Amino acid sequence: MNERELNRKRLVVQPRDFHFGDSGEDALLLDCGKQLSSVNIRYETYGELNANGDNAVLVLHALSGDAHVAGYFTEDDKDEKPGWWDDMIGPGKYVDTNRYFVVCSNVIGGCSGSTGPRSVNPATGKLYNMDFPVITIADMARAQHRLMQHLNVKKWLGVLGGSMGGMQVLEWARLFPENLQCAIAIATTPRLSPQSIAFNWVGREAVKTDPNWNDGNYGDNIPVRGLSTARMLAHITYLSDESMKRKFGRVLQKSQNYSFDFHFDFAVESYLAYQGQRFVERFDANSYLYITRAMDYFDISAYAGGNLTKALSSVKSPFLVVSFTSDWLFPTSQSRELVRALLNNEVPVSSCEIESSYGHDAFLLEIETLGKMISDFLRIQQGRMRHA
Amino acid sequence: MNERELNRKRLVVQPRDFHFGDSGEDALLLDCGKQLSSVNIRYETYGELNANGDNAVLVLHALSGDAHVAGYFTEDDKDEKPGWWDDMIGPGKYVDTNRYFVVCSNVIGGCSGSTGPRSVNPATGKLYNMDFPVITIADMARAQHRLMQHLNVKKWLGVLGGSMGGMQVLEWARLFPENLQCAIAIATTPRLSPQSIAFNWVGREAVKTDPNWNDGNYGDNIPVRGLSTARMLAHITYLSDESMKRKFGRVLQKSQNYSFDFHFDFAVESYLAYQGQRFVERFDANSYLYITRAMDYFDISAYAGGNLTKALSSVKSPFLVVSFTSDWLFPTSQSRELVRALLNNEVPVSSCEIESSYGHDAFLLEIETLGKMISDFLRIQQGRMRHA
Repeated sequence: MNERELNRKRLVVQPRDFHFGDSGEDALLLDCGKQLSSVNIRYETYGELNANGDNAVLVLHALSGDAHVAGYFTEDDKDEKPGWWDDMIGPGKYVDTNRYFVVCSNVIGGCSGSTGPRSVNPATGKLYNMDFPVITIADMARAQHRLMQHLNVKKWLGVLGGSMGGMQVLEWARLFPENLQCAIAIATTPRLSPQSIAFNWVGREAVKTDPNWNDGNYGDNIPVRGLSTARMLAHITYLSDESMKRKFGRVLQKSQNYSFDFHFDFAVESYLAYQGQRFVERFDANSYLYITRAMDYFDISAYAGGNLTKALSSVKSPFLVVSFTSDWLFPTSQSRELVRALLNNEVPVSSCEIESSYGHDAFLLEIETLGKMISDFLRIQQGRMRHA
Repeated sequence: MNERELNRKRLVVQPRDFHFGDSGEDALLLDCGKQLSSVNIRYETYGELNANGDNAVLVLHALSGDAHVAGYFTEDDKDEKPGWWDDMIGPGKYVDTNRYFVVCSNVIGGCSGSTGPRSVNPATGKLYNMDFPVITIADMARAQHRLMQHLNVKKWLGVLGGSMGGMQVLEWARLFPENLQCAIAIATTPRLSPQSIAFNWVGREAVKTDPNWNDGNYGDNIPVRGLSTARMLAHITYLSDESMKRKFGRVLQKSQNYSFDFHFDFAVESYLAYQGQRFVERFDANSYLYITRAMDYFDISAYAGGNLTKALSSVKSPFLVVSFTSDWLFPTSQSRELVRALLNNEVPVSSCEIESSYGHDAFLLEIETLGKMISDFLRIQQGRMRHA
């Protein structure tokens, strides 16, 4: 196959927008008690919804993700990178878009097309910035539910996501039990631990310390340094001690000898700085504050006074729960808590701890092992949905 | 015993200063190749050096420690807090100052009396700030060696410390093998891991992002927010996931319900902020940069091209190596590497992993278990020193 033919085989997608809530009645009622009106949801779809309506899969993204889960925006731009889970999703891939109708949308509070703190507040005509209401993971799921109705999907075959995406999976299963056949929760947790709340706090402090942040009212002069520091910190928690040793060790950036200064000396330092810089180019500081806060507030058990089993009693859909051995951000122990609570509710659960040294990021990297599980689980569940 | 008598029993200490290096010849030659002149070492001593000279114990402090390891500065100030390891060291305590002559000094580069970046540069008459030379853990040990000579100690019975103090222990054993009978290295590592280097990098970025830092040339308007952020981050690495769950859980600070804002909402957040604030009151931002950099550069194996066994071939003193089960900053695996390399050199080693949920901070909290080990080890080694 020549290059032109290869390019022709690219999955090319078009981002779309779904707008709702311009009238007061239609606005989104948030957990904080406020209403969000004039809401935009940026989303992408891959494949076609079949006549039975039993092939729709909703993918939910993590903190720094977006609606562009797979494919390309152009036919032939060689520099363009594909969507964030392109190895997983596409024609003939593990989540096969020849077979499934896949939907992914940017969360509310985000900065990649959906309404968030950098959107215009219809009440003032100015950017919300820190006047944007504090949102929750459940609010994200509620907004996605509006999108589902708009797309004429009655019931998702599967709702799946990793990390914060997995938190949204849990809210979907709890809030809208009739609207999904199965749930796939990867590298996630039923509640954010105090350690993670603490890391989020420090990351937000780093953003706020940057004078460019200016209480959230920045213009073109964005808080590059603060946001980059927050991202570098978070990035450490996505890797494992082991993977950092393997990837960087104590290798020096330039020479054999220490520079004895405060510039990049170790390879791991310049790697982090590069990651921080890249993040700032594509992500907004205020969104970072809002989305990390939504994660802080995530605790499924809180819906039943701390009783996780009771809080999940509305769940009807079978679950696939996957964790990774070296993930210390959302370790297997937290997935096990979730599995126990689901089993207490007699929900069918398949669970697996995948051996991996990649840390939390494994859900983006262990594609083959994870992909086979997801593929099999969806196929089995589609059979059940058809024969129900 | 009434209160007055209790107060009278306080171990009262006087901080002292040892000054050297005013003449060029006497200056301290640093690993970076520069010389440090007009060096002050702030130190404290407890107990008396005996006639045999076989009861001297050198205690080496961690990143945020200082020379004030035990006792009080006043006879009766009720608000005064004792030294940082007062439960361990004092009359009748595990390191019994009725029996031992205990010495602790502030590291060079520090901010608690010893020469550091906020000292006056004799060459310019101004504060060094970021013109202070980058120092190493070995440089700290070399400065302490000058203090040893000043105190007329020929050979320490024991050299002991936790965390960065343990790194200094390793440098002492390697650099001055004739000058110590035994070494006690607690919750430490033979080399800083890339994960720790990464956390240090992020902490320093947080300091530098604070506009008050001003390239290190701050006056009274110190970089409170940046340093406090760095400290909060470091503090998370000193605790364990388990201890944070036990201590804070997801408990809210004020009410039963979420505040839906960005102020302190969780108990863990206000605890961290308090720790950050307290730290800024007693620690200097530039010192923080220099001391974390010294830790980054710590790698004993680098003295022999990465061969830890060979790098420790000069060691003569028996070792006690202690780690803690929940310490993820300097986990037991790193202590084991050290133990193996010492055993390869036929150095007698006692080692122990203490069961504790306190994380890295366990070396300051598991006093009873740790104290008994240290006490026994010193007593046995004193017997050997006497009969050598």
